[in-house]
Amino acid sequence: MEENEDSEIIEHHVNEEMEKKGFTTRHTHLFLESVTLSEREGYSTQSSHRLLAYSDALISIIATVMILPVAHTQFQDDQELKESLQHLLTTKVAVYLMTFLIVSVAWAAHIRLFQVIERIDDCLALLNLACMMLITFLPYTFSLMATFPENILGILLFCTCVIVIGLIQAVIVMYGFSHPFLLNDQIQISENQGFYKRHILKVILRVPVFCFIAIIFSFIFFPLSYVLLAFVTFLPYISQSLKWCRNKAIGQMEETPDSMLFYSYHPNEPLSKERVEAFSDGVYAIVATLLILDICEDNVPDPAVVQRRFNSSLIEALQEFGPEFLAYFGSFATVGLLWFVHHSLFLHVTRTTRLMGLLNTFSLAFVGGLPLAYELTHEFPRNSRNELEAIQISCVIIFFAGVFQLAIWVAALFSERETLHPYVRYGGRDHAFMFAKLALYPCVALGTFFVTCALSRFSAPVFHLMQMAVPVAFLLLRLLVRLGLALLRRLFCPTPPATHSALEEEDLRLPFSDLAT
Amino acid sequence: MEENEDSEIIEHHVNEEMEKKGFTTRHTHLFLESVTLSEREGYSTQSSHRLLAYSDALISIIATVMILPVAHTQFQDDQELKESLQHLLTTKVAVYLMTFLIVSVAWAAHIRLFQVIERIDDCLALLNLACMMLITFLPYTFSLMATFPENILGILLFCTCVIVIGLIQAVIVMYGFSHPFLLNDQIQISENQGFYKRHILKVILRVPVFCFIAIIFSFIFFPLSYVLLAFVTFLPYISQSLKWCRNKAIGQMEETPDSMLFYSYHPNEPLSKERVEAFSDGVYAIVATLLILDICEDNVPDPAVVQRRFNSSLIEALQEFGPEFLAYFGSFATVGLLWFVHHSLFLHVTRTTRLMGLLNTFSLAFVGGLPLAYELTHEFPRNSRNELEAIQISCVIIFFAGVFQLAIWVAALFSERETLHPYVRYGGRDHAFMFAKLALYPCVALGTFFVTCALSRFSAPVFHLMQMAVPVAFLLLRLLVRLGLALLRRLFCPTPPATHSALEEEDLRLPFSDLAT
Repeated sequence: MEENEDSEIIEHHVNEEMEKKGFTTRHTHLFLESVTLSEREGYSTQSSHRLLAYSDALISIIATVMILPVAHTQFQDDQELKESLQHLLTTKVAVYLMTFLIVSVAWAAHIRLFQVIERIDDCLALLNLACMMLITFLPYTFSLMATFPENILGILLFCTCVIVIGLIQAVIVMYGFSHPFLLNDQIQISENQGFYKRHILKVILRVPVFCFIAIIFSFIFFPLSYVLLAFVTFLPYISQSLKWCRNKAIGQMEETPDSMLFYSYHPNEPLSKERVEAFSDGVYAIVATLLILDICEDNVPDPAVVQRRFNSSLIEALQEFGPEFLAYFGSFATVGLLWFVHHSLFLHVTRTTRLMGLLNTFSLAFVGGLPLAYELTHEFPRNSRNELEAIQISCVIIFFAGVFQLAIWVAALFSERETLHPYVRYGGRDHAFMFAKLALYPCVALGTFFVTCALSRFSAPVFHLMQMAVPVAFLLLRLLVRLGLALLRRLFCPTPPATHSALEEEDLRLPFSDLAT
Repeated sequence: MEENEDSEIIEHHVNEEMEKKGFTTRHTHLFLESVTLSEREGYSTQSSHRLLAYSDALISIIATVMILPVAHTQFQDDQELKESLQHLLTTKVAVYLMTFLIVSVAWAAHIRLFQVIERIDDCLALLNLACMMLITFLPYTFSLMATFPENILGILLFCTCVIVIGLIQAVIVMYGFSHPFLLNDQIQISENQGFYKRHILKVILRVPVFCFIAIIFSFIFFPLSYVLLAFVTFLPYISQSLKWCRNKAIGQMEETPDSMLFYSYHPNEPLSKERVEAFSDGVYAIVATLLILDICEDNVPDPAVVQRRFNSSLIEALQEFGPEFLAYFGSFATVGLLWFVHHSLFLHVTRTTRLMGLLNTFSLAFVGGLPLAYELTHEFPRNSRNELEAIQISCVIIFFAGVFQLAIWVAALFSERETLHPYVRYGGRDHAFMFAKLALYPCVALGTFFVTCALSRFSAPVFHLMQMAVPVAFLLLRLLVRLGLALLRRLFCPTPPATHSALEEEDLRLPFSDLAT
């Protein structure tokens, strides 16, 4: 079996590397060879791609789960929407948003972990599954905390989960560093692997330690443990913004030292673009189909009821559910088109930074609220005050979902050389078109909001008209942008096109491979 | 802007191809250039990867949706499980299985379509979203049919959806062939594009035509339209198995003519392996989290109830839900480990055939039933006859889910040169290990089934013991297989290793690139 080993380039590489380090490492290597022979054969070069895709799918489902209790809240018709909304806003929406945040923090930690460990074997795959199981349990512990804020059981469960997740991740790191061929190539050839290992373990174990302190405090004075947990959750963002402010104040270059390349919490630290896309796809897919889950379960009428109430006329019985089907198609189309915008944007993104990831999370959190908003629009009688408010809430949610997508692009434009394809950079060929694509939904939502304010009697028709107009607008968008640009050029400046194309050429001369890395 | 065009290799290629065909085509080309300039710039070489991943996510969610009405059926405690099961089996389980089949047929058609059209632009992305919206509506029309079998409305809705989907797909094909740079490279350089186009359109439009006939028959004699629909759904499988039988009978070589490379319904026709994986990942992810969706929504106790019934003791209140948490972790672990087996198998699959895809669909359909089975195991009082039967049903479902995974591998072994990595082929290095991995769940499920038959009083402990033992077994599997093989070798044959390794060497000499295509 020995002759097969040469075919595996990575192992070969590791062997070379090992040989440099002299006898001690060599001895360890031989030891490893005997113990972990099984893992090093065949599976050693196993790419982690599919494991990560599956993890992304699980995490995106869990992130959006907590919208279900919000969406299934029953509204009393006689009650004013505002009142029930206040009730909603205080607990369920807060739980949803916090869950989304916590799960996406866990997801970001998962990304960073598997940017260090690039290849997996069976053992790591099983450990990762155990980790996933605990992450999927977090939303439940969180809703326990929200429902029983004075009971420490919620805190205990949450902290226990987080501690166990942290320990499993530490085991994964230890395992990875004891089988160096699983690691990122850059770390694999680095001289100070031990330093990396300590640094990564320190960052990972920081969170369990905080949670352990929170558990102790929960027995003494529990409000303090909430403060501690909030601090842990926002830790990356706090340290990140503090660093950014300090750097801006001192005017220091944001040069990452070699040791801080991983687990640095820099706003410009790269997040795997592939995984950001996979996570977003998962959220968009779940959200788009949330309403059909309900429809398939609840909106098939009972044969007995149809016979009794509708004289066996199924069409009449289904007409009762008409608004719900409309809500489904409306929400699917909106979520689908927001996905389309996201897809178009990320097609031209070459590298995702942490800041872009954060803005993406905010956008997705609003997208998750869409089915709820659409369901609200048909819960209330026509032309009631409630209906108007439900429609306006939908507009606000669409507006924010779209605006945060636009913000991703704006954030990318600040460091466009590293993050964007030349076409959509400032002055690039598709710059105006991309802007139009990203601005379409926020503009339409804002317009609909103000029109419904002015024409409150026709709010529902205006809203449905908007729903039908937007897909057409997307189909014709390139044409419209060309017309608009031509018009602008003719009105204001007949000469600029020359400098414009010069800029474009300069951008296009940049080698593409340079951008992809 | 003309100078940028050379950078796009594919277009350049198309231009060359076009030039060969003389003036008429050239004229068309110039015409296209003027009309569709917008689509041919920048977006022309846009890969369809992410669009397909999103479609796969949507379709996998929809395929598993119909398990929810099954899982949420309330069982009366006094009622025997058998009785309620009969009620379930007749409608809801049938609806679930049929939906799964129909959706996976639609998915297979979607794969084939986008194996022909390999690149997309904005217009195709929007058309595909419209197509997806209609596919997600299919399960609902199907459950209408099952609930009101005598009412033609269900048939009408279903057929209308299928016809519109077919028409949109036809538009996508027409659009693709009018922008040849979007097509599969093989078709792009082919001389008889027109023939391909007609063949593909014929296959796609066959289904809407059948549905149109079914609509007409539904007004005259509706049972006939059900027969027609069943025929359409199974059409690919029927024609496939007929062809296979005929080929075997005549002894003819299964040589695919050039014209039949796409849309041929051959059992050996390749399905995109990437998409089979993405679809499976989606199903496994949804199924693994189905129970937590319920738990997050239903199992947070009401503060008022806790105060009244449990003297404000949250722990006592949660103990009521204990079995449900156990069911969640059990189901997550089982689904996760089945995913792990699937992942290990597809790591060594180099090419997926239609037959393997079909077996994979069957396996996934059983996986979808797992949460239901696990939920059943805690619905009934301890040591009741119902509990025993629920546990046995779980075993049967796990058994079939595992056996169909094993069948994928067996099917792959029949044409192992094209479909499998040398390691897991007959006589390959990891052949025995892969077999052990695939056989573990079926064996354990079968064992548990018979043990619970014999020791019916201890069925629950036996089942829970099995749940805890399996992950450990997976961790130690490689070791166990080595021990077992060594034992077998020592017992039966001390010489074979020589011929064994000779076989292996021969396999390994095969160039890898050869296998990947």
